[in-house]
Amino acid sequence: MMNDTNIGERLDFLRSLQRRMSAYDHAMALIQFDGATSAPAKTADNRAAAMGVLSEEIYRIGSSDETVAALEELDARKDELSQKERRQVYLLLRDIREMRKIPQDEYAAYQRLAVKSDAVWHEAKERSDFGMFLPYLEKMFETEKRFALYAEPDKDPYDHCLSKYEEGLTRETLDGFFGSLRSELVPLIAEVSRHPQPDDGIRFGDFPADRQEKLAYRLMETIGLDMGHVGLSTTEHPFTTSFGSHSDVRITTHYHMGDFVCSMYSVIHEGGHALYDSGSDDELAYTVLDGGASMSVHESQSRFYENIIGRSRAFCELIFPTLTEIFPEHMKGRTPNELYLAVNKAEPSLIRTEADELTYSLHVMIRYELEKAVFDGSIKVKDLPFEWNRMYKEYLGVDVPDDRRGVLQDSHWSGGLIGYFPSYALGNAYGAQLYDKMKESLDVEKLVASGCISDVNAWNRENIWRHGRTYSPSELLTRVFGGPFDPSHYVGYLRTKYADIYGL
Amino acid sequence: MMNDTNIGERLDFLRSLQRRMSAYDHAMALIQFDGATSAPAKTADNRAAAMGVLSEEIYRIGSSDETVAALEELDARKDELSQKERRQVYLLLRDIREMRKIPQDEYAAYQRLAVKSDAVWHEAKERSDFGMFLPYLEKMFETEKRFALYAEPDKDPYDHCLSKYEEGLTRETLDGFFGSLRSELVPLIAEVSRHPQPDDGIRFGDFPADRQEKLAYRLMETIGLDMGHVGLSTTEHPFTTSFGSHSDVRITTHYHMGDFVCSMYSVIHEGGHALYDSGSDDELAYTVLDGGASMSVHESQSRFYENIIGRSRAFCELIFPTLTEIFPEHMKGRTPNELYLAVNKAEPSLIRTEADELTYSLHVMIRYELEKAVFDGSIKVKDLPFEWNRMYKEYLGVDVPDDRRGVLQDSHWSGGLIGYFPSYALGNAYGAQLYDKMKESLDVEKLVASGCISDVNAWNRENIWRHGRTYSPSELLTRVFGGPFDPSHYVGYLRTKYADIYGL
Repeated sequence: MMNDTNIGERLDFLRSLQRRMSAYDHAMALIQFDGATSAPAKTADNRAAAMGVLSEEIYRIGSSDETVAALEELDARKDELSQKERRQVYLLLRDIREMRKIPQDEYAAYQRLAVKSDAVWHEAKERSDFGMFLPYLEKMFETEKRFALYAEPDKDPYDHCLSKYEEGLTRETLDGFFGSLRSELVPLIAEVSRHPQPDDGIRFGDFPADRQEKLAYRLMETIGLDMGHVGLSTTEHPFTTSFGSHSDVRITTHYHMGDFVCSMYSVIHEGGHALYDSGSDDELAYTVLDGGASMSVHESQSRFYENIIGRSRAFCELIFPTLTEIFPEHMKGRTPNELYLAVNKAEPSLIRTEADELTYSLHVMIRYELEKAVFDGSIKVKDLPFEWNRMYKEYLGVDVPDDRRGVLQDSHWSGGLIGYFPSYALGNAYGAQLYDKMKESLDVEKLVASGCISDVNAWNRENIWRHGRTYSPSELLTRVFGGPFDPSHYVGYLRTKYADIYGL
Repeated sequence: MMNDTNIGERLDFLRSLQRRMSAYDHAMALIQFDGATSAPAKTADNRAAAMGVLSEEIYRIGSSDETVAALEELDARKDELSQKERRQVYLLLRDIREMRKIPQDEYAAYQRLAVKSDAVWHEAKERSDFGMFLPYLEKMFETEKRFALYAEPDKDPYDHCLSKYEEGLTRETLDGFFGSLRSELVPLIAEVSRHPQPDDGIRFGDFPADRQEKLAYRLMETIGLDMGHVGLSTTEHPFTTSFGSHSDVRITTHYHMGDFVCSMYSVIHEGGHALYDSGSDDELAYTVLDGGASMSVHESQSRFYENIIGRSRAFCELIFPTLTEIFPEHMKGRTPNELYLAVNKAEPSLIRTEADELTYSLHVMIRYELEKAVFDGSIKVKDLPFEWNRMYKEYLGVDVPDDRRGVLQDSHWSGGLIGYFPSYALGNAYGAQLYDKMKESLDVEKLVASGCISDVNAWNRENIWRHGRTYSPSELLTRVFGGPFDPSHYVGYLRTKYADIYGL
């Protein structure tokens, strides 16, 4: 019976469904962006009202009987679909089916919990009071575990959480990955700590916002962003977003008046996200395949531009004349080498978001170990502060003075983002392996030194960006790597780089 | 049968319907705002895609059989409703019924025409080529007339168009209004033209954007805007908008580096709109009654703050120390009286949006006469340039050098806004009559001079703002005026003010 329907009509429905969903995504992303950029202080409730309605509307459209029936028919007739159409149907159905397994009242309770929990976390962090956050954090871990079991009763619930952010990711992969980081990086960091630190005075001074903004635009051009489709705004916490399709991407930055390096590398980092987001093939626009393959692959691009390109000796030489032009008094008598050393200074520290390239992934490892241990019951939520502080001492050698600068520092858990952290570290490692692959066909350092970053971009576009979500992250990366993911590229990259900087 | 339904359920539906519509309004207003403020140059098509979907969605919700049935039942049981609920049902049903009378294919054709016509107008204006715009303008006038006759077959179609923007407005009212402006203002303008012009050198110089922005914020505070709920951004053409409810309002301005007066009065004008928009009673939020009663009443507020307050001698004295603080070198040796004279210089000119307070309404009168004549067939669309130029000579005494600075200057007709212009002039006249009424209980000049604009605001809030769209504009104004609208207040206000400035 069903097969009597013209497949063309069903495909029209599929296209129109995704077009509708893109418009809601556009609206909701823009409302959030407005809240972070230009909204007056007391308008959050008004945005929440609109977001509440729009997310109900998109839920209604996405999970209506008509939608589910059409997608299930397409799924049953997948032989008649192109690879891209199959993938669209798969991703849409996966999300709908998972959502439908959660009882509606429990889902509503979860959303209320998340809003409340986030507000309590803000206050608890302010006061450095883990006790007041504890009951919410316990409920959050419990709910995430329960929902994971609704979605995939036969799968380990933490593996399910990991897979939400990185399709197919498991503890097994991560145990291997973080194990090798632990054994290689902990001694390397200890070694670096015994060497004298480079002078980073070049980054400090008095840098007016309008000149830093000029630098931001020059950096965006230097890394090859299409300024007709990528915008720049300012926010408290920088991020990248896109509105409805890859043809409208925005990055944000924050200017620290006393240190131009903060915004400089933030712009290059978000610029890496923006290159990826705006690099999807045009035919993917207004489909669920538009944008990045996963959070980790996204981080592989942002970190690639920020660290592997942006913190390279070649880039410091390339950008130095621009810095001299924009901050002439400040750069007088300085050298590109001083910049290179200053932006690569490595030092174990307390705060993940401020960590340097060398120590960053260990911050992530600690969070991974803790999430895993709470899920398998080997530690309790109430023990997180103690375990957190113990691991910071063991792996990074630092003493955590209070929970504000310890277990309460990140917003992720308060909003239910459990299983999300590993993406940050995986992205670093993917980037290093991509870099080694890229070097097989391109002289990257030479291209960067001569300002030809567009050639580097062309490689990334061809291998990563243009595919959007057409492939799962592991399929995509296996194709590019020509083999499995191998963290030794990342460790090797760090070892070589820091040996050079610290003369190990 | 129908009356068996619990009225409470129907009222819940009414509330929820308006809440949903508010969220779409929020999203669409924000997408337009983004386009005018921070969007990259080549993203208009992407916004059009989202707007297309969202406007279809809201049309679907607003005109569904379920919605119409619920509203019609509420309409039939209006005795059981409060005055505000009755008004909500009336406004919602009026728009839906009118929309449903237009055949869907004709409506779609109209929307395509409007997009195309606007694009052609831009180019025609650029080239000063009325001929290329003529076929579109003819179709636009023809379509507006046809749609007016669908909506109200027994009413004069131009009266219908007027009523779209100002409920109940007719040619009869406007003929009387503009007749009195013509007989009083044309000779007054001629008289002013024979007197020497004041020196307006105080407004010109070099005014950096960051300092003009500082002034803008100070002005917003001075006129009493609640900065937690009203934001400021920059755009090419200033406007005011609100997102979903009166609790989130934005104004925009444009800084001219050589003349601080442009942005100063633009901020006060938009600030007047924002005071009105943000002044609705909280119980009106997320209903169709939130916001302004009509375009004219809105202009009465913006023009009141811009001209009657902002261009008064008292305000010039009040704000002068702020100007001296922000532009100390420039203001050295200047006086508040110089500012007062400079911002009130009156001179017949070609462009409506740049016209001074004295001559502005005559620009509007010319457009009204032309629209009316095209609708009643006494002139043809192709004769508009000739008639336009003839009237500018007759009423303002200026020669129109080309159509770019003549009949092609405004965007309104290209987008189908026929019947909209008179609101601008009515707003001026309403404001003057409100001012006379206000002076019966407040010493306005004294309050302004002493910085107590909040007392002026309290009067406007009580009489105008808090009611939103609860009353039709004429009901609202008749209540406040304590009698009918009378343009002699406006003419009297202008005569007194310009006699003072020009020593007539």
